[in-house]
Formats: sequence, structure tokens, C-alpha cells
Amino acid sequence: MKFSKFFIPTLREAPGDAAVISHKLMLRSGMIRRLANGLFAYLPLGLRSFRKLERIIREEMDATGALEVKPTVVVPAELWKESGRWDTMGEALLRVKNRQNGDFVISPTAEEAITALVRDDLSSYKQLPLNLYQINTKYRDEVRPRYGVMRGREFVMKDAYSFHTDDASLSRTYEDMGRAYRNIFRRCGLSVIPVSADSGAMGGSGSEEFMIESEIGDNTLILCKSCEYAANVEKAACKPDFVPAGIAAAKEAAAGLPAMSRIDTPDTKSIAELCAFLKTGANKFIKTLVYQAANPSGDLLKAHIGGDMPAMLPIVALIRGDLDVNETKLASLLGASDVALAADTEVTRITGAPVGFAGPAGLNGVLIIADETVSAMTNAITGALVKDAHYQNVAFGRDFEPNIIADIRTVTANDRCPVCGGEFYEKKGNELGHIFKLACKYTKVMKVSYLDVDGKAQTPLMGCYGIGLDRTLAAVIEEHNDGAGIIWPLPLAPFEALIVPVKYEGAVKEASDNLYAELGKLGIDVLLDDRDERPGVKFNDGDLIGIPFRVVIGDKNLKAQPRRIELKRRGEDEVRLVELERAAAIIAEEARTELMSAYYAGGET
Amino acid sequence: MKFSKFFIPTLREAPGDAAVISHKLMLRSGMIRRLANGLFAYLPLGLRSFRKLERIIREEMDATGALEVKPTVVVPAELWKESGRWDTMGEALLRVKNRQNGDFVISPTAEEAITALVRDDLSSYKQLPLNLYQINTKYRDEVRPRYGVMRGREFVMKDAYSFHTDDASLSRTYEDMGRAYRNIFRRCGLSVIPVSADSGAMGGSGSEEFMIESEIGDNTLILCKSCEYAANVEKAACKPDFVPAGIAAAKEAAAGLPAMSRIDTPDTKSIAELCAFLKTGANKFIKTLVYQAANPSGDLLKAHIGGDMPAMLPIVALIRGDLDVNETKLASLLGASDVALAADTEVTRITGAPVGFAGPAGLNGVLIIADETVSAMTNAITGALVKDAHYQNVAFGRDFEPNIIADIRTVTANDRCPVCGGEFYEKKGNELGHIFKLACKYTKVMKVSYLDVDGKAQTPLMGCYGIGLDRTLAAVIEEHNDGAGIIWPLPLAPFEALIVPVKYEGAVKEASDNLYAELGKLGIDVLLDDRDERPGVKFNDGDLIGIPFRVVIGDKNLKAQPRRIELKRRGEDEVRLVELERAAAIIAEEARTELMSAYYAGGET
Repeated sequence: MKFSKFFIPTLREAPGDAAVISHKLMLRSGMIRRLANGLFAYLPLGLRSFRKLERIIREEMDATGALEVKPTVVVPAELWKESGRWDTMGEALLRVKNRQNGDFVISPTAEEAITALVRDDLSSYKQLPLNLYQINTKYRDEVRPRYGVMRGREFVMKDAYSFHTDDASLSRTYEDMGRAYRNIFRRCGLSVIPVSADSGAMGGSGSEEFMIESEIGDNTLILCKSCEYAANVEKAACKPDFVPAGIAAAKEAAAGLPAMSRIDTPDTKSIAELCAFLKTGANKFIKTLVYQAANPSGDLLKAHIGGDMPAMLPIVALIRGDLDVNETKLASLLGASDVALAADTEVTRITGAPVGFAGPAGLNGVLIIADETVSAMTNAITGALVKDAHYQNVAFGRDFEPNIIADIRTVTANDRCPVCGGEFYEKKGNELGHIFKLACKYTKVMKVSYLDVDGKAQTPLMGCYGIGLDRTLAAVIEEHNDGAGIIWPLPLAPFEALIVPVKYEGAVKEASDNLYAELGKLGIDVLLDDRDERPGVKFNDGDLIGIPFRVVIGDKNLKAQPRRIELKRRGEDEVRLVELERAAAIIAEEARTELMSAYYAGGET
Repeated sequence: MKFSKFFIPTLREAPGDAAVISHKLMLRSGMIRRLANGLFAYLPLGLRSFRKLERIIREEMDATGALEVKPTVVVPAELWKESGRWDTMGEALLRVKNRQNGDFVISPTAEEAITALVRDDLSSYKQLPLNLYQINTKYRDEVRPRYGVMRGREFVMKDAYSFHTDDASLSRTYEDMGRAYRNIFRRCGLSVIPVSADSGAMGGSGSEEFMIESEIGDNTLILCKSCEYAANVEKAACKPDFVPAGIAAAKEAAAGLPAMSRIDTPDTKSIAELCAFLKTGANKFIKTLVYQAANPSGDLLKAHIGGDMPAMLPIVALIRGDLDVNETKLASLLGASDVALAADTEVTRITGAPVGFAGPAGLNGVLIIADETVSAMTNAITGALVKDAHYQNVAFGRDFEPNIIADIRTVTANDRCPVCGGEFYEKKGNELGHIFKLACKYTKVMKVSYLDVDGKAQTPLMGCYGIGLDRTLAAVIEEHNDGAGIIWPLPLAPFEALIVPVKYEGAVKEASDNLYAELGKLGIDVLLDDRDERPGVKFNDGDLIGIPFRVVIGDKNLKAQPRRIELKRRGEDEVRLVELERAAAIIAEEARTELMSAYYAGGET
């Protein structure tokens, strides 16, 4: 490609609203342009890298035996109503009515569409396992899109959905996808942190996120200094710092303990105030929080709620006073689309107590969920459900019984690793990919079935696997840049080699054109800067757009015997004088070696 | 690919709502599935052909120097408001509000988005010409989607938009696109009819449609038996069968003719009734029709309408009594999104005459548009604007003056070719592609400019060029099929070769596996039917999905010396016995020759 025939509108400065380096560089290098808040168009340069990423992903997916399909972007709402997500997805789901007043969804993801497709044509166990993927446009109506394509509203995602007869088969595909993802990210030159999103963390890994460390990350990661444990704080577990007890054991143990008694705590509402007033540690208190859970669902809850599930369910959460409730864990436990602390008036209505004096002892008519830590508390302090009073010597099992005991605590860097007991540290991260065992979540509610070997109808298990392409491309730039611009890893470079004639005329033009043709024949993506600009301008643009090999052709070196050119790698200082006649072969050979090593290095297949 | 690892859910019968052969075969062969009315998902088999078509189009576009970009599918309504199409596109435009109540459009086409992109970065004439294209999802909210992907609501279109400093440059790119389109359709094995959509047809070709003949075509084509003239009836012109006159000449000529006089025509409203009553031909009448034009626009109209253009403009159209008004020509003349005959009450309100007695003589207060044929009428009969009366001896120019004279007649097969005077014939056709000179239509209203060589701001000219991918694929199937299924042209075949082992075991399995590996190495897309099914079932599926080369491997032919296989081309009867050892080379050579000939045959570059 000749520079003058291409369209690379580079900018000296990025617009003021570009806050992160990848966003700035994608704008400055002319890779993308903003059409509206969270909506970006790829210009020819950006699209070249985008298509290379697409090809890498397609190759790795195809290598696992996954099959590409193409559902529509606009999907009938019926399917989302079947899955229940029409109600639970909230405002992030872009909804549209067509001219016949039918409801449609601009797909943010495709569990429903793919499940519906498979449902229609799945008959026999012989068709399984089946792993269908697409690389297609998605839309999420983010409240606050930002960081360019890192968190846009419209984006392209590779999403795969697999279907299985049994868990062993699901696990094999899940592992295949994990390997494919590591291959993809390695070929992109990305250092990803695979993060188990599993609360247990012990073996049964039902979900794994591929995170990239980033100052602007949406996620807090909890990592172990001693072993490979890494988790999103939303789901991180820790080594128990308590001895858990079942209700029965707790009751028995509490029988010999001092009885619960009421103490006056005038105007003392917060844990901090109580600690000071009673001269004791926060870990002696049972913190009592009232939440409203939106769109709760799931079997766990059904066992406790008679009749239809309400759209908004008030619940009381209990946790040891020195800890915080993890709302993501709580929402996940309740199968809720969202949980939020109740307003003061609701707290009083639900618990009958003024704010600051709620507690589980004597509390009725509301679902109570206790963190595991609470099940070990025998002489705790809690609100007495009346103004200015608390109970002391409250014993779990004897003085109150929660409906559900579960891990709902927020793990911090001060906790210990649940795997090895080692110390934790924190990082900020951005999720680039996610693989997930869905089991029967969609296939059951959407009534997918196949006939097993005995001719009996069965519900297939399902997995889903996503990678955001735009975000991955931005992450590569975040990791590979310097003050001058992007430093593309070869497999994603929009052009692999740049030829800069000092002045595009005479012998220099001839040598440039010949080298351009030669490199093209050798399969190298080459850009020839044929513009009538000063060499400095061309060098700056070349560095900004980040082309890996730069060849400078000038009169002086061409007059040497043999004729020479300057060869420089982007991101390196060394400038090599190379014989003109050998330049194409040298570049092609180095490029081939590098692409192969990206392809194979530590490659898992 | 092994059949058992692929996903080809073939159907014995197509669902009842599939009316045309391509729709039936795409469903039966497992290429596509319906997600909702007008929304189709491509399954793996269909997507393979789709991707090959995409590649052909990309290659041909790239060869012309066009540059690929990727705007978003969801586009801010602001841009459509700027161009005016937010108001004129009507209900076919799918509109959506995001969570912040902003208006967005699910792109049916991208003049606005691309023009906006170019506007931001275009500064100098040195950047022109520029031709940007995308291959991307589009949505048109069709009232009545039908014929499968032939007329779906969501579809993929290749749409290109070029920008130029002058008409010569626009014409060059326009011609390049025409050549590229003919190459694309030829490589797809399609017989397209390039149809000038230009009314003049003499030279200045501002628009060309690429039509495929089809019984289910939406378009009526008018073709000349003697020359290459072909036009959409919506725009077709014909050899004048009248002698046109200007107003001044007509006035002068009419001076010596009998004066206009009133005749009684009790209860005689229609032209047919009048012909019988007055014993004269329909060509003696001036037919007077009242239309409502929605969203009229354009300079022609501005000269006649003072102040703001109304949303709905009543107009009177005059045409010779033996002809029909072409509403598309009329709408195009008025720059209107739609024109429709006015209701009876409106006719009376606008003309002051009862229905059946309207006429141009004495008619005031409404815009009058006369077809060119009317300008030659000197002793015509028209309504007298009162009940039961007409005028005779009405002379154009003397007794009435229209505001605008233009070609608004519907040409029929009975007319004569405007180029050579030859006879016409008709065909039904479907539009697969369209190339169009937009001139300054969008660049002007969206305020795009560049600095010319003298540093003066100029508005660039623009062209646009579209091909519907889904529709093209369906058209290929419409043209290439037989009773057994699809007969894929090699360049679009999902697999080029099919290996059918009579029974996939023992020596047959070994020979099949080896041939499969050999063909793969030779770059042939090969499908091995490894299923445990009867040969008849495999043959039927192979014929249905239309794979060009079929190899049958059975014990009997393997026992011959040398070992043999059966080779058959889809769509041909001949079965060749070919040496197993030479089979791969023979198939690869035949495929290569065929692909090359599709690529080059009559190839324009």
C-alpha cells in the first residue's frame, strides 16, 4: 500500500476526552474515530489490525473444532422473555420496537439466539458435543461508556456456546477454550492473568476470566503471593479465620454459654461507636444489613419463598462486624439482577427497629442470610430491635437461626489465600475474555432436549466463552507503546514493514518501489511512504502508527558499494545498515521467525 | 472437515412458508434458520459460502483501491437529522432510544456515517479521491419480508462511498465500481443484467442497477430487443411518440387553432366513458391526477414554492390520456419520500371540481406538473372543473400553463427504445447491486469541504455503491439448482470436494482418510462423510448441499488394479473411474483451472 493511496489521518494531539493511552493513540494514529459517545468507527488502519485479531481468534477457535455461525444482531424479544433476561437485564439491554410493534433486542450476547438455533435442530446425542461461535456486533447500553473502545457501547465479541451430554464433555471443551484463549492472548503479545471466578477455588472451576492488569481496570483482583490463586474480588474466597458450625452443633455448644441479655446503648448506632462505647473489637458484633434484591430467582430461594417470586425481595444479611458484605456474591446467591441497601424507612418497616438497632434475635417475617463467619459467633453483640438498646452474649443457633448460611464476605488483601494460606495482594484489571460453565441454565428454561443413547429425552449441558475484540486490541496498545506511539506486536501490526524514502524520486524512488514489490511478493504487508513530506514527519507518523520494521532509503547509502538501506525495529534503538539486495529476504525471514514463535511459543494445542 | 464433526441439519421438506427455491434449499440444506420474520441465522454450512462471497467482494473492492472501514451499526440519529433522512426515510428506518433518551438508528445504509467520518478528517484535495467501503450488518424494517434472505430485515451489505474533487474523478471510480461489480457477479456464476437507472439513457449514466432475472423480482425491467438498453420501469424512458413544444412555441402555434369550448358530458367521468361518449381516442385527453407528495425537497421545487417546504404537498399531474403517470419518476422529480393519489374529498377541495371533472384550464392555487407528452397537445379534451362538463380544443400554452414540464410517464413494452427505436420486452428482476453518482447530495447538506489547489474551500462530489450479500447468495442458488438441490459454482461452494466412503471402515476408511488429507494439503476444502449412514442418504445430502466434486470410495473399485474411485461433478451425469493415487491431483487441477477461469474469464481490471 502506498501511503498517499491510504487514509491515515494522524493527529498531533488526541481530543481532550481521551483519558487513557490506548484511546489517545488509536485516535492519534487514525485507527478509530468517534461517532457518538461509546460508538467508534474503525478507519482503514485500525481495521487492518482488527481483521488480523479476528483471524487469530478464528484460527484458534477453528483449531478446537468450534463451528462459526452468524445469528442476527437484532433478535426477537420472545427469546429473551423465554430465558427471563428480558426482565432481569435492566437498562443495559437496548430494546427496540419494529413497525409492527414487535419487541426486539440489539444483542449484547447470544445465549438465547444460539440456544434457540440448537433447540430446533438438536435431536440425538450423536450431534453432541457441539460448539458454535460467532464474531459479531454486540451492543450494551453502558451508562457511562469510556476509555474509547475499551468500554464502548457497540463492540465486536467472539462468543461461543457449547452443548454437551455430560459434564466430562463440557469440561473438555471448557479446557479447550481456556487453551485457545491463552494461545490467542499470547499471539497478541498480551500478558493476561487467568482469574478463577469460582468462589470455591478448589478444583471445580466453573468460570475463568482472562484479565489484563490496568490502572483503569473495572475489576479488583486478589492474587496470592505464594501460589497461582487469582480471583476477582467480586468472587474471591479466603482461608476461613473462624471455625464454622452447623445449626445443630452451634445450638449444643451454646447451651452452656451465658444467656443473651439486653444492654443500653443510647445514641450508639455504628459499629465504630459501639466499639468505643463497649470497649471491644468490631469482630464481636453481628452486622445486620437490610437489602432489596431485584428479580430474585433460583432453587435455593424457592425452598424459602412460598408462591410466586416477588419482583423485589427484602432480605436481611448478617456478617461479622469487621467484614463487609460482597453484594455480587449476595446477588449471585439470590439469583438477583441487582441488590441494593434498603432505604432507612424500609429498614424500619421491615425490621420494626430504628436504623442502627436492627439485629437477628427476635426478627421475623423476613428472609435472613448469614455469612459463614456468623455461624461461628457465640457471644456476639447485635441490635435489640428497639431504640438505644443492643443484646450481648448472642449465640448463633440458640438466639437466632438464619434461613441461609453462605459465603457473602468481601475478601481483602488482608485475608489469606484459600488454597495455600499465603498472603494476598491486589491489582486492578480489565476483563478481556471469560469462559463459563452454564450447565443447564438456558437449556432447561428454554426447553432444549436431545435423545440419549437409550432414546430418553435429556437436557444438554452448556458452556459459554467470550472475548471482546475491541477491548483486546486496546489492551495490546496499552501494553505496547512508548512516548512516540504504538509498538505493534508483529501478528497485529496493520502493516509489517514501512519503507521511508528520504525523498521519493530518482534512484531512491526506484529502490523503494523495487523493495516494495519484493516485500509484497514475500507476503509482507508493506506500506510505502510516498508522500512529499520531510523525513522527520514520515518517521513520526511511522512511530505513531507503530509499524514493526522500518526501512529508510536515502541517496547516501544507495551510493555505497554494495548499496545499503537502514533497517530499524520499532521499539528498539539499533539501526542496522543492510544491503539493499538482501533487505527483503532479511525482513521476511525475521518476520517469519517472529510470527512462528508467537504462534508456537509455549503454544498449547 | 468430517461430516460428523460438522453441523449440517438437512431437512427432507422445507417449512411451508418457504415459497421460492433458494429459500427452500437454504433451509433444507441447513445453511440458514429462521429466528423471526425476516431474521435469519447462518449455520456453519451457509456461513462458509457467505464468507467466500465476502472474500470475493473484498478482493474486487481492494483491487480498485477502495479502503475498508467499519462504522458502527447503531448510529446517532443526529447524522440522519443532518441529512434530512430522519424525516424522509419513513418506517423502514428502525429507530431506537438509548437509556439516556438519545435517538439512534440501526443503519440501513451508511451515507451519513461515512460522510461524517470523512468530514472530520478531510482537509486537502490531496486526500482525494477516496473510496471507503464496509461489509457490515444493515437493517431495513420491511413491511413484508419474504423469500428468505432474498428480502430479509437484517442483512449484510457491502456499501462503498467515494469522494472526489471533480466529475471526471467520480466517473472513473464509478466505472471502476461497475467493472468490479461485473467481476464479482461473474465469479459468483451469476448472469446479471446491468440496468441503467438513468432516465436519459444517452451517455450520462448517473446510476446503474445490477439485476438478476427472477420470477419473484420486485422490479419490472424494460429491455430493448435491438440494442443493450435495459432500464427499470420505474425510470425507463422511451422514444418520444409526440413532438414536444416549449410554452412560447406552443402559444404561437395555438393562436390559429379553434378556441377552447365547453361540452356537456353528463355522468361521464372516466377516460373510457369519455372515449365512448365522444367517439375519440384516449390520446386526445389530458388526464388530470391529484397527488399528495410527502416530504418534497430540492431546488426545482424551491423555485415554485415560497417559504418553507410543507411536509405534504398537493400537486396536479397531467399526462396524455392513453398513458400512466410513473409515481417513482414523479416522487424523484419532487424529491419526495412518497407520492400517493389524493382522496376524493381532497381532489374536490384542491381543484374545486367533482371527481372526474378536474382539468388544467382555469385551475389555480396548486402546483401543476405536465408530462412532456402534454406539451404537444393542441386540441385536447379535459375536465371543465364543473360537474358534467369538459372542455374541447384545449391547447397547451394557450389555455393552461403547467409549472413544470418533465418526463413522468410509465414506459411499457409497447413503447420504443429511446436509444435505437427498437422494440421493447419486459422481464421481472431483483436488484443485487447498485452504483450511483450522488454528486453533492450529502456532502452539501452535511457541510463537507476540502481546500482545493488554490486553498479555496470546495464541496466534494460523492458516489455510492452497494451489493447485498445475502440476496446475492440466494440469487446464485436460484440460478444454480436442480431437483436434487443446490449446484454450487466452485468459488462459492461451502466445500469443494465431498468424499463418500460407501462404508467408513477398513480399506475404504483408510483410502478415504488418505485422500482427505491429500486434498487438504492441496488447498481443497474437503468434506468427508464419515457417518454411519447408507450411501443413498449420503448421496442425497451431498446433492442437496451441492458440493461440486464428489468422490465415492468403495471396496469394489479399491480392489481393482490400480485402485480406483468414482469421481462425479455435481450437476453432471458422467461418473468417471479415476485412479485413487491420481484422484487428489486431478481434482486439485480441475478446481484450480475452474477457479482461475471464473476469476479471469472476460475479467475486467
